[in-house]
Amino acid sequence: MKKVAIYPGSFDPITNGHVDIIERGVEIFDELIVAVAHNPQKANLFSEKERVDMIRQIFKGRKNIEVDSFSCLLVDYVARRQAKVIMKGLRFVSDFEYEFQMALTNRRMNSQIETLFMMASEPYSYLSSGLVKEIASLEGSVSGMVPKLVEKRLREKLQKKGKGKKDAVS
Amino acid sequence: MKKVAIYPGSFDPITNGHVDIIERGVEIFDELIVAVAHNPQKANLFSEKERVDMIRQIFKGRKNIEVDSFSCLLVDYVARRQAKVIMKGLRFVSDFEYEFQMALTNRRMNSQIETLFMMASEPYSYLSSGLVKEIASLEGSVSGMVPKLVEKRLREKLQKKGKGKKDAVS
Amino acid sequence: MKKVAIYPGSFDPITNGHVDIIERGVEIFDELIVAVAHNPQKANLFSEKERVDMIRQIFKGRKNIEVDSFSCLLVDYVARRQAKVIMKGLRFVSDFEYEFQMALTNRRMNSQIETLFMMASEPYSYLSSGLVKEIASLEGSVSGMVPKLVEKRLREKLQKKGKGKKDAVS
Amino acid sequence: MKKVAIYPGSFDPITNGHVDIIERGVEIFDELIVAVAHNPQKANLFSEKERVDMIRQIFKGRKNIEVDSFSCLLVDYVARRQAKVIMKGLRFVSDFEYEFQMALTNRRMNSQIETLFMMASEPYSYLSSGLVKEIASLEGSVSGMVPKLVEKRLREKLQKKGKGKKDAVS
Amino acid sequence: MKKVAIYPGSFDPITNGHVDIIERGVEIFDELIVAVAHNPQKANLFSEKERVDMIRQIFKGRKNIEVDSFSCLLVDYVARRQAKVIMKGLRFVSDFEYEFQMALTNRRMNSQIETLFMMASEPYSYLSSGLVKEIASLEGSVSGMVPKLVEKRLREKLQKKGKGKKDAVS
Amino acid sequence: MKKVAIYPGSFDPITNGHVDIIERGVEIFDELIVAVAHNPQKANLFSEKERVDMIRQIFKGRKNIEVDSFSCLLVDYVARRQAKVIMKGLRFVSDFEYEFQMALTNRRMNSQIETLFMMASEPYSYLSSGLVKEIASLEGSVSGMVPKLVEKRLREKLQKKGKGKKDAVS
Repeated sequence: MKKVAIYPGSFDPITNGHVDIIERGVEIFDELIVAVAHNPQKANLFSEKERVDMIRQIFKGRKNIEVDSFSCLLVDYVARRQAKVIMKGLRFVSDFEYEFQMALTNRRMNSQIETLFMMASEPYSYLSSGLVKEIASLEGSVSGMVPKLVEKRLREKLQKKGKGKKDAVS
Repeated sequence: MKKVAIYPGSFDPITNGHVDIIERGVEIFDELIVAVAHNPQKANLFSEKERVDMIRQIFKGRKNIEVDSFSCLLVDYVARRQAKVIMKGLRFVSDFEYEFQMALTNRRMNSQIETLFMMASEPYSYLSSGLVKEIASLEGSVSGMVPKLVEKRLREKLQKKGKGKKDAVS
Repeated sequence: MKKVAIYPGSFDPITNGHVDIIERGVEIFDELIVAVAHNPQKANLFSEKERVDMIRQIFKGRKNIEVDSFSCLLVDYVARRQAKVIMKGLRFVSDFEYEFQMALTNRRMNSQIETLFMMASEPYSYLSSGLVKEIASLEGSVSGMVPKLVEKRLREKLQKKGKGKKDAVS
Repeated sequence: MKKVAIYPGSFDPITNGHVDIIERGVEIFDELIVAVAHNPQKANLFSEKERVDMIRQIFKGRKNIEVDSFSCLLVDYVARRQAKVIMKGLRFVSDFEYEFQMALTNRRMNSQIETLFMMASEPYSYLSSGLVKEIASLEGSVSGMVPKLVEKRLREKLQKKGKGKKDAVS
Repeated sequence: MKKVAIYPGSFDPITNGHVDIIERGVEIFDELIVAVAHNPQKANLFSEKERVDMIRQIFKGRKNIEVDSFSCLLVDYVARRQAKVIMKGLRFVSDFEYEFQMALTNRRMNSQIETLFMMASEPYSYLSSGLVKEIASLEGSVSGMVPKLVEKRLREKLQKKGKGKKDAVS
Repeated sequence: MKKVAIYPGSFDPITNGHVDIIERGVEIFDELIVAVAHNPQKANLFSEKERVDMIRQIFKGRKNIEVDSFSCLLVDYVARRQAKVIMKGLRFVSDFEYEFQMALTNRRMNSQIETLFMMASEPYSYLSSGLVKEIASLEGSVSGMVPKLVEKRLREKLQKKGKGKKDAVS
């Protein structure tokens, strides 16, 4: 039977840390579904469609990587896709505790579904979408932190929003 | 002298984790006062009155459990109630650090008052009011995570608010 | 291609927490190899042979669970067994940091090998082989913490060692 | 060559914990620049000008302490001021992880700049600007937590804002 | 009914951090039993008798503080003493995880017994018996870290052991 | 006045992580003294003399790096060398807590001496002398983890000790 894993997240935007986890995950499973969470209550910089489109372009032509979005409970989405595994990356102790909570809750809601974790590779262990947006909004370079395409989209997006909202990174 | 402990919190809404701490605390002290914090700046789902009412119904008929609310500094409330002990539950390392900070600050403000901690029981160590609301808002079942009454109130409350504001749990 | 995962450890002795990870892991991979580390420098209670034998008996008749031992670098063993995945359980933040270090080191030594983590189930999140031995040496019951067979072997082993070496658990 | 260190922060408002780090830092470096972050997106209680003014008054007459503000990337500000060292205080594990992330990111953006950390002194290890504002807003005393001047300004500021927005500290 | 709490530990030797927890605990409970763990497998500096004697002298004349020792499972000792509460101090995150494990294990073995935690006061949050012994063995002053009596006994004990075994504290 | 910092440690043996901290530290201070702790109670692989010699060879010709050893309390050594600053690297949360404890203790013993911390660079954040020895003892390659000279010395040392004591790394 084909082994399918779901890699869920906000991906606002996708970083090289996410890309690293995807590339490593697809080596282990037969198919990896990158699942963008539809979360209208969060103030995302990129719309759900923009987030999905960017990831699709980055992995264009990759047969065993699918990009999708979902707007229900993650475990319900995973069951609907007939997958049994959720993949997550771990960077920090604080990640760890939140993910621990989510993994236990998800198992409680559906004991057929397992969450597997990978440690972030060193060069990406400090990366987060939030940090990338903060740096870009202050006109810092995020080169090497996100794929080229995302770098370009971030610049376009932030130019549109104007420069009135900058925050010093300290 | 009667030994009174105060168990403060937002309880928005009360979970089975809170109930577990209350049931264990009342075994140790002669009286336990569940004290709902009046915090208008937080965007609570339930009003202060609703939160107090739910807890009162859950512990109806229990002589040594009182439910109250407060809108001042916790240490001032504790002193006014002539109690000497604040009870708190600990789940995570992040809990621990925040609670450490609050316990030290409260002792500094009133050295007569002591904060005692209990470790959350395993089945509740991952539970939080926020997680419960997140799951309920996505129409997931929170059965076993909150008392039956809270489950019902959550459903009513979320139906009123409509379904436009759902967030995917990832 | 058959997906094989290695679950390494000291297993001195195997606990129900280990059993839980093995049972969950075998649902994800086609074959799971439980690999007992030969570590003569550690003062183990059970010999390598005894540890292997206990695990073999517990999983007797399970076609996709193999029990083996190794005395070299873990990555070399994994490569020799033509596996690509190391499975580990995570219980605590301290686990997390040590496992983070080991996972990064192992990837550095062999980038073809990936380490995947599962969170321990709640009832086992506090369990460790060390704790089990400590309780047993004080004649406490470890029922529910280890398989029946291990309970029996622990009792036999500790009776032989006599009672001169007890430590109070505090 | 004169050794200059930058001590950046929001300082909304400055606490005795910040003052302690500044006094200790100036013993090590020839000059310390306290750099107030201009962050219009954060809902600060005090304006940038107010925050800078309070710190200037507190360190008035101190030749090797300069107070400044910045509204760009911190590393760009540090380079512009021809400094090589960023100084930060550490209080908690959560501080540690965030600061770790920022220090690695800043080194990545400018490898000439080093971040050095000092552990907060015990009496201040639980202090934060947020906690101070929370206590003051509930009419608790923050004496000993902030300089006298800040205590006075907090009182004035909070009287202006009225009392309608109180939150119970629990 | 008289409320009795047990405060267990190695106390090798008792520090001012332990004394602080005892003094605070006795304000909450009617009686506090300081219970010295008999642990012959640990290489203690002071014998069980010496550890008990020092604590007895320090709390001489205090009616509601008893000093005792135990050599069985802690929960068995607590039950035998007809107490329901174990008291522990918390200093660090690492403390927290170990104590979490022990509290859950003890509740599992005897659900009638509850463990309550107090946060160490700031001046003692860094103290441990091990650190005290390390400093004393290098002829550093431990004044303010342990009671005067313990300071004296440490000096006597270390003089007897000679100076051949010093370790640099780094 | 010349600014001197002390970088203390066991260095058994020095790793590339240590080298990184030394190279970065010497950019900030006028002189850096690498201070090898004389700790006969620890079972070091290399003698104090061997550890000092390796570090001396690695930094031969570097005018502002001195290599020394000490066998007293660190603060006494720092005072004797007329330095005011202790430098340490931080890698993990567990490092953080231990170092927090040591920094507070050292300030208590000598308030003139300050401890400054640097975050380990990513490629070295997982490295420790213990890990290096463990890998080398299993005949794994530690290339890139330690300087070439240390790699050679490790090989010689472990060949002498024979192969009877190997431990599997898991």
